[in-house]
Amino acid sequence: MTAHPQLADLPTPSLLLDESRMLANIERLRGRMAGLGVGLRPHLKTAKSVDVARHLLDGGNGPATVSTLREAEVFFEAGVTDILYAVGIAPQKLRQVSKMRAAGCDLTVLLDTIEQADAVAAASREAGAPIPALIEIDCDGHRGGLEPNDGKLVEIARRLVEGGATLRGVMTHAGESYGAVGMEAQAVFAERERAAVVAAAARLRETGLPCPVVSVGSTPTAHAASDLTGVTEMRAGVYVFFDLVMAGIGVCRVEDIALSVLTTVIGHKRERGWILIDAGWMALSRDRGTAAQAVDQGYGLVCDETGRILDDLLVVTVNQEHGIVALRKGSRAALPALPVGTRLRIVPNHACATAGQFDAYHVLPKEAGAPLRRWARFGGW
Amino acid sequence: MTAHPQLADLPTPSLLLDESRMLANIERLRGRMAGLGVGLRPHLKTAKSVDVARHLLDGGNGPATVSTLREAEVFFEAGVTDILYAVGIAPQKLRQVSKMRAAGCDLTVLLDTIEQADAVAAASREAGAPIPALIEIDCDGHRGGLEPNDGKLVEIARRLVEGGATLRGVMTHAGESYGAVGMEAQAVFAERERAAVVAAAARLRETGLPCPVVSVGSTPTAHAASDLTGVTEMRAGVYVFFDLVMAGIGVCRVEDIALSVLTTVIGHKRERGWILIDAGWMALSRDRGTAAQAVDQGYGLVCDETGRILDDLLVVTVNQEHGIVALRKGSRAALPALPVGTRLRIVPNHACATAGQFDAYHVLPKEAGAPLRRWARFGGW
Repeated sequence: MTAHPQLADLPTPSLLLDESRMLANIERLRGRMAGLGVGLRPHLKTAKSVDVARHLLDGGNGPATVSTLREAEVFFEAGVTDILYAVGIAPQKLRQVSKMRAAGCDLTVLLDTIEQADAVAAASREAGAPIPALIEIDCDGHRGGLEPNDGKLVEIARRLVEGGATLRGVMTHAGESYGAVGMEAQAVFAERERAAVVAAAARLRETGLPCPVVSVGSTPTAHAASDLTGVTEMRAGVYVFFDLVMAGIGVCRVEDIALSVLTTVIGHKRERGWILIDAGWMALSRDRGTAAQAVDQGYGLVCDETGRILDDLLVVTVNQEHGIVALRKGSRAALPALPVGTRLRIVPNHACATAGQFDAYHVLPKEAGAPLRRWARFGGW
Repeated sequence: MTAHPQLADLPTPSLLLDESRMLANIERLRGRMAGLGVGLRPHLKTAKSVDVARHLLDGGNGPATVSTLREAEVFFEAGVTDILYAVGIAPQKLRQVSKMRAAGCDLTVLLDTIEQADAVAAASREAGAPIPALIEIDCDGHRGGLEPNDGKLVEIARRLVEGGATLRGVMTHAGESYGAVGMEAQAVFAERERAAVVAAAARLRETGLPCPVVSVGSTPTAHAASDLTGVTEMRAGVYVFFDLVMAGIGVCRVEDIALSVLTTVIGHKRERGWILIDAGWMALSRDRGTAAQAVDQGYGLVCDETGRILDDLLVVTVNQEHGIVALRKGSRAALPALPVGTRLRIVPNHACATAGQFDAYHVLPKEAGAPLRRWARFGGW
């Protein structure tokens, strides 16, 4: 393997995206969902890039999930018109939601309280146009949402419908599936997701309320689900790039991870076994998602410039613009020399967090010998 | 206290900067340094804002420290001409350094290896203009740098001078002072900084080498140093805003912290004592700098919209765009109601990390009743 010749021209730290791996990751979940007969609504919060979204979305414009209104705006401008804003709605944001809907974006909001339902209904009446909402269901105690048998479920649904909003359905996210190791354990969470929203949908329909959308999803459950009866759509995000957290629970292999951070060796502390690099937490993020896993990967795995993993070498400490690379505790590998100026690549714990530190992907193209491409990404709210 | 009326118009999450607190923090260290007779070279990596730099720098343009070449470029464009790039230089970055120097920026680099010294000398010869360098000294085993008695110190200095670069002096940073609680313990690190660089400077001068600059600094040591004999300049960064990490080791009070993140309540899980907000790790960062301190502040302290701290209320968990607020473990305080739509402010663990997640400060002006100002900030490399 040789490194792409243009890598030498990139400043460090820079964010690299392996296009072939990304395309394979996209195809893998697309194929799974086609097999299960359920539509996919990719979560764009991981990539925050129109270029990546073109590959992720059906026909380049298909249904999408976002985590901020800023994402909704950017992707709507790029032609994506069916968008779920999958964070509980703050009433103050509803005016912007109505504005986007009036401009032609079929933007759906999420909620799990009576106050929010009343606010969405009021905003619908104010705009003279119903805002569609999903009710969030809790399937695993991870965060928000109503349990399917919560008395407020029907109350909230009624207030939406009677208040002038649109009840579009129910959704859940098994955030706890990120702690489940292996497909068998993840399949349990997939079934919890399915059972919770299907039960909630049934309750709504029994009372004569509509529930066209029954939405589930997380990357581990999307890859583990074997039966999605009653579910209408799957959401997942990090599957597009994968990361060490996903590899640590067996959803992917380390070789599937499409992101890495290009960095340069800037010093050594040989008596301590330290190699200093110019990627600190500003580049890698402070995410330590593998700390709770069986194998702690520090702040990331160290590869050479071609992407080949260097035995037992981790980023063990980070400051703002410094990383300290050292051997994994207990390793018998020899610390490689890696002279000052050597280029390395760091495979991140958490793709969403590390990508979020950069304003662009430098794309290693799938065609051998093709030039690097630059895909812009954005942040903010 | 009432909240600034324009806060209601800001989207959430947004980053707030209390101008009065910032100005008091700046004056506090400026007064200290004047008393000790040592110049201040503020580190601009915390603020990454030209507007903040105008207040921080002497005459608005005075000497500055940066952590990336991007910072050097932005601040040079804004008129700052005396800049120390205080991260060990990667040889690949020297062409850009020479370019900036040729344009009139007195940019100094940092190094601690023979390879770097040779690269800086070679780049100086190539540019036909000497690049000035400081040699990094290790005073506390925190990261990089040579111990003052390291044989390589004089060797590196000689290679710089004989190779055509400029030896500008020595510098150190007591990164371990962030773990020292109380001014007495921090003063020990301040003296370690001083002793290390003064010894290194003496060794260079004994061999006939120049050493005009003797640079020390960190926010804790800058506030604890009582004798800086032999030191020519102090560097510090986070003192401009302060944060919970600094408050936790007694360098400031929580009431001195100038930054907070404005957020909105988006839900409740009352049976668990949870309040959900729309600020997750994307807004607050993943920094858990207080986790190792006597009082763990979670992902930040919760205040009302006016900035008044709410008893024992912390952000205990974060996802990308969700935060979970709950009472501190063991607290006997009552969980406040905080209905959906309530605006809160989160005081961050680490100012550099949290500010780094935003593209602007919304400035609460020192003049009562004056409008909010927006100060842009930047990131990248």
